[in-house]
Amino acid sequence: MKLTTFPNAPEPDAQQLITQERAETTFSLNEMHEFLEDGSEKAIHTLRLMQQIERDPILQVKPEYYELTKAEHRKLTADKIARLAQFMEQDAPNFETFQDRLNLIALIDPQLGTRVGVHLGLFLSAIRGNGTEEQFNYWAFERGAIYIRDIYGCFSMTEIAHGSNVAALQTTAEYDLENDEFIITTPHIGATKWWIGGAAHSATHTVVFARLIVKGKDYGVKTFVVPLRDANHDLYPGVAIGDIGEKMGRDGIDNGWIQFSGVRIPREYLLSKFTKVSREGEVEEPPLEQLAYGALLGGRVTMVTDSFRTGERFITIALRYAVGRRQFTVKGQTVENQLINYPLHQKRLLPYLAWVYGMSVASAQIQKDYKAILQGLDDGVKSGDFSILSRAIDDLKGLFADSASLKSTCTWLTADLIDEARQSCGGHGYSAYAGFGKGYADHVVQCTWEGDNNILAQNSGRITIQRVMAFLKNGKAVGNYSFLEKAQQEGFVVEDEKGLRDLDSLNAALQSVIFRLAKHGIATQEANGTNWDLSATEKRSLSKLYAAEYILDKWIAKIKNDGHSEEVKAQLTTLATLFAYSNIEKFGIYFLQHDILSKAVYGALERESYSILAKTRESVIGFTDSFKLSDFFLNSVLGNYNGDVYHNYLEVVQATNDVRQTKPPYAKEFLAMLQRSSIEDREKGQRNAAVLAKLNSD
Amino acid sequence: MKLTTFPNAPEPDAQQLITQERAETTFSLNEMHEFLEDGSEKAIHTLRLMQQIERDPILQVKPEYYELTKAEHRKLTADKIARLAQFMEQDAPNFETFQDRLNLIALIDPQLGTRVGVHLGLFLSAIRGNGTEEQFNYWAFERGAIYIRDIYGCFSMTEIAHGSNVAALQTTAEYDLENDEFIITTPHIGATKWWIGGAAHSATHTVVFARLIVKGKDYGVKTFVVPLRDANHDLYPGVAIGDIGEKMGRDGIDNGWIQFSGVRIPREYLLSKFTKVSREGEVEEPPLEQLAYGALLGGRVTMVTDSFRTGERFITIALRYAVGRRQFTVKGQTVENQLINYPLHQKRLLPYLAWVYGMSVASAQIQKDYKAILQGLDDGVKSGDFSILSRAIDDLKGLFADSASLKSTCTWLTADLIDEARQSCGGHGYSAYAGFGKGYADHVVQCTWEGDNNILAQNSGRITIQRVMAFLKNGKAVGNYSFLEKAQQEGFVVEDEKGLRDLDSLNAALQSVIFRLAKHGIATQEANGTNWDLSATEKRSLSKLYAAEYILDKWIAKIKNDGHSEEVKAQLTTLATLFAYSNIEKFGIYFLQHDILSKAVYGALERESYSILAKTRESVIGFTDSFKLSDFFLNSVLGNYNGDVYHNYLEVVQATNDVRQTKPPYAKEFLAMLQRSSIEDREKGQRNAAVLAKLNSD
Repeated sequence: MKLTTFPNAPEPDAQQLITQERAETTFSLNEMHEFLEDGSEKAIHTLRLMQQIERDPILQVKPEYYELTKAEHRKLTADKIARLAQFMEQDAPNFETFQDRLNLIALIDPQLGTRVGVHLGLFLSAIRGNGTEEQFNYWAFERGAIYIRDIYGCFSMTEIAHGSNVAALQTTAEYDLENDEFIITTPHIGATKWWIGGAAHSATHTVVFARLIVKGKDYGVKTFVVPLRDANHDLYPGVAIGDIGEKMGRDGIDNGWIQFSGVRIPREYLLSKFTKVSREGEVEEPPLEQLAYGALLGGRVTMVTDSFRTGERFITIALRYAVGRRQFTVKGQTVENQLINYPLHQKRLLPYLAWVYGMSVASAQIQKDYKAILQGLDDGVKSGDFSILSRAIDDLKGLFADSASLKSTCTWLTADLIDEARQSCGGHGYSAYAGFGKGYADHVVQCTWEGDNNILAQNSGRITIQRVMAFLKNGKAVGNYSFLEKAQQEGFVVEDEKGLRDLDSLNAALQSVIFRLAKHGIATQEANGTNWDLSATEKRSLSKLYAAEYILDKWIAKIKNDGHSEEVKAQLTTLATLFAYSNIEKFGIYFLQHDILSKAVYGALERESYSILAKTRESVIGFTDSFKLSDFFLNSVLGNYNGDVYHNYLEVVQATNDVRQTKPPYAKEFLAMLQRSSIEDREKGQRNAAVLAKLNSD
Repeated sequence: MKLTTFPNAPEPDAQQLITQERAETTFSLNEMHEFLEDGSEKAIHTLRLMQQIERDPILQVKPEYYELTKAEHRKLTADKIARLAQFMEQDAPNFETFQDRLNLIALIDPQLGTRVGVHLGLFLSAIRGNGTEEQFNYWAFERGAIYIRDIYGCFSMTEIAHGSNVAALQTTAEYDLENDEFIITTPHIGATKWWIGGAAHSATHTVVFARLIVKGKDYGVKTFVVPLRDANHDLYPGVAIGDIGEKMGRDGIDNGWIQFSGVRIPREYLLSKFTKVSREGEVEEPPLEQLAYGALLGGRVTMVTDSFRTGERFITIALRYAVGRRQFTVKGQTVENQLINYPLHQKRLLPYLAWVYGMSVASAQIQKDYKAILQGLDDGVKSGDFSILSRAIDDLKGLFADSASLKSTCTWLTADLIDEARQSCGGHGYSAYAGFGKGYADHVVQCTWEGDNNILAQNSGRITIQRVMAFLKNGKAVGNYSFLEKAQQEGFVVEDEKGLRDLDSLNAALQSVIFRLAKHGIATQEANGTNWDLSATEKRSLSKLYAAEYILDKWIAKIKNDGHSEEVKAQLTTLATLFAYSNIEKFGIYFLQHDILSKAVYGALERESYSILAKTRESVIGFTDSFKLSDFFLNSVLGNYNGDVYHNYLEVVQATNDVRQTKPPYAKEFLAMLQRSSIEDREKGQRNAAVLAKLNSD
């Protein structure tokens, strides 16, 4: 809305700046979008889902979303779940489309994504992964869980005193031979199921992780379906559930605690694809424990995609603002400089832009791998052929390693991205309507749940060290580790400045640093009596470097093979180079310590990185427009497509906070304070010199 | 509350672990507390203020605090302001005690601290700094602002399109010669005052930063007192104020926007200690522009103290949890290991503990400097002796540099501390009742306001480079830069592993890296035609390194000179060594690039740091108990003194979320969804094969 200006000083020209840079974009947004979405078919699929979401009457998200209380979020989320259940009726049994839909919803309403994700991605995946085909069919189709009908599931794994160490959970499922039932018990406070999303309000059933105890013997943690509420949505006796209340973010999720006090379930509710208990109490255990944990992998894979999407959203907001905002003049300028023109501002934001492009590559790849592996496992189980199953399990282990590294690295990176993006918008980044506040609070739990990032990174780093140990021993390097053969060469990898402009050479540098750092980690352990803990820092770094190498390697292949135009290839090469530089700089010390680059070449990289930043800066509007996120999906006063940031911002603030009164809220309280009489009056002079003289006993 | 356990499995033993480690503390908590509070007198002063706060009926903060809505926060904050006004009547005119009180309140209710801080620290400081003595006396004492009576002030500096670049603000104050008044005008949307704390609800007056225009000439930005609301708390005509609404945190603050449309104020409302406008429109300008910006320095100094206090709070919570929480067994153990025993966990948290101790040193020092300089300025102005004033201004510039470096470094560090502390508590860190969520959201604005950290760090780094340039030119190094003389030596500074165990030698390493990195920055600029922007990364690093050196240098002196017992000295030496290591590791690449340490010695430091961590770990309960923060000031279910974390946590969650119903909230919504009929029913078969056959035109 155009407003009166007086006197004739020029208004800010943010909109004009963004419009102009948009007009100067040199490459095809469609082509770039297809790169980001891994092909034109998927690109169209994504846009179609976006339209369905942003036009739906129930799934609306507006700036007012940032003002909702916990109770309002809970109510709205309940309504939205019911709406998504109707979409599920359309999508089922195509889980993939529904998951893509949820991933997009997670972008604007992450708590809603989780609510439904717990039911479909954890509860049903656990049944699918650990139950027999008949068990899955009963709960999912016969009862209707797949359509979110009749059954709403939650996933009772974590306890108040045990999260990461699943094997040490304390809830028990004791087999009662006489009655052919399991008795589920929370023995003490430490075993209280905690953080269970869906438990406090929506769940009717749950999958419980509990220690199977048969004839006094503890068989370790297995999974059981346990009904929580009946068809009137009333809690069964023996089941105590409470809301765990307010959280840092995602308050639309009804996380709860559950205590079981002698809850009886039929023996048949044990999920028994791998673990079976006969009527007589004979126990058959799974051939491989890993098979039982597949349910969590889906979540980790999804979080790579979510990091990519969340990254797209927040880097767009920050970069549009950086183009439109002016601050300080530099030598020779008469108007203030655009924020994005400052090398420091570029250095703060553009490596994250490169990471978002890189995460699109990682997301597409790991989604493909995941689907293939699930299929392989199903085939293996159905075939009854142990060699097929065993190959599938090897692939599963590979995916476990990849997803541990990528989930932890990408969710951490995205947390940092949101925070840096917020800070780069100055004070306005702190407005709730900018989106960063809730965005950060909602996102960061991804660093903790479904595998704590530090533990995942340790696992990933340990696997890399083990692979390098095996390679050093027998010369074998397989799968994503085949680069070890090449990396074994000694001496500087990037030998001169020319190498800094060659992606393959930068990739080789990342590969070599992984190899040499892992060797260093091995030496550290050997010097400390195989104490893995003293190479903890190396392991964490190895996990992050592995993720960077994973991305760069596949990114280079896409640039070479995907048939893009020369212009798009050139732009992607710039971004990939920036991605490589930022990773080398982040772990610069290793590159010097292990002689990957000489000090001179490293110094050249620091200088060269400013040129790459300057080159990237030229196309920031094009790069972010290529994400094709509408204002609905951005939901930020600072990031609208039209770039008219100040008018957009004032309008939202006025619309959401209008009072139309000359007296502000709490005027009564302030008047009582401000107009109070003086302290001397209020204490009736009882500290005056005259009074004190009277009271004096000298 | 002790609960029934069944079967006889052991409950978690968090409380026992903490109690036992507490009993094993080897040093005097009182002595350590005196170190932290800079002497026994101040230590007692702090504890006395804490008791007054935690016992006051209005200033209470409980876990429920984390559940309040914006409206509830606003109401409670209004009541608390009125209560603090009564404390102010007791404290005045002793600003210092009141400021200490506010600093402690900021620990548990940061928004309340800000509300009052804006009035006393910004509004009144601006009048004190820029007004004549008579002007200050009128507004502060005669009218009562100092007791928060009659007048409530706010500080109208920032505009929607200008924050950091104060000199470019667009609001105008035009002198109307005929009527002897200034006319205050917001010419266009870009000049709308924005983020003005106190404006939306409480303020009756404001200090406005506006361009002084006299007879068509623009004299730049000056300060004016402008009444906003009358004694009925009604807005004056021409003054438009709105609430800027929901924020990432600190929702108890009524940040507002203000637009002035021809608001007339008497000429006498110009704050005219340095800038004067006569009745005839003659303008006298200040001898030095810097004098006008003193008001903001107080805020920066306070933020160093606030970082220290906030750091105390959150590191205590995380470390108590890390002692009480068990996770995974390690070789040879039968019970699970305490989190704090893992070297990675130590590496994640203990350097922050060392930083908190270091920030106590910085806080005490910069508070002393600030008070001395304010006194010096007052003396200088009063004396009329330009040489005294000029010396005071030099000191002011020094404080500007120190506070720029320390404010930015400490607030960033504390933001990272809160986040790492939260992550280190796993999922439970994400509970609102743990305190991290609101703690982080409330704290991080400190990185942005009253001097954006990136800009402050650039300023600080530029000053260091300029000092080094001057030193290289004329051999002079003064004040906190006197170390440059020693740092000029060439070659490795820490030559062998022995040097790693000597604090002076580690301090010399920090000093040398500052010198050599600054020289590198100078070379970079010279190679780029004095383009300062291309040494932006170095400047930011220099600012952080300067803060680290500032702290370590003064910390070493305190250890040597403050007469502590040998035991406390030894403990402080361990912490200071850890502090030095963590800073060297953070900027490790510079230490290698500039030959401060050889690769071999750097490798030794990496190994040695695990020993220092292990040594620090032994006393974590003692180190955190020494902060003497009661449960009231921690306000976290994870950090209570008794260590009984799981019972504390469950009790709070039950107390705040009790429903005592078998039907959960929103049962109606969920039943409607779950018990709906199938999609086939609802679409009355219109997609059945039989129907489609009828409709088929083949």
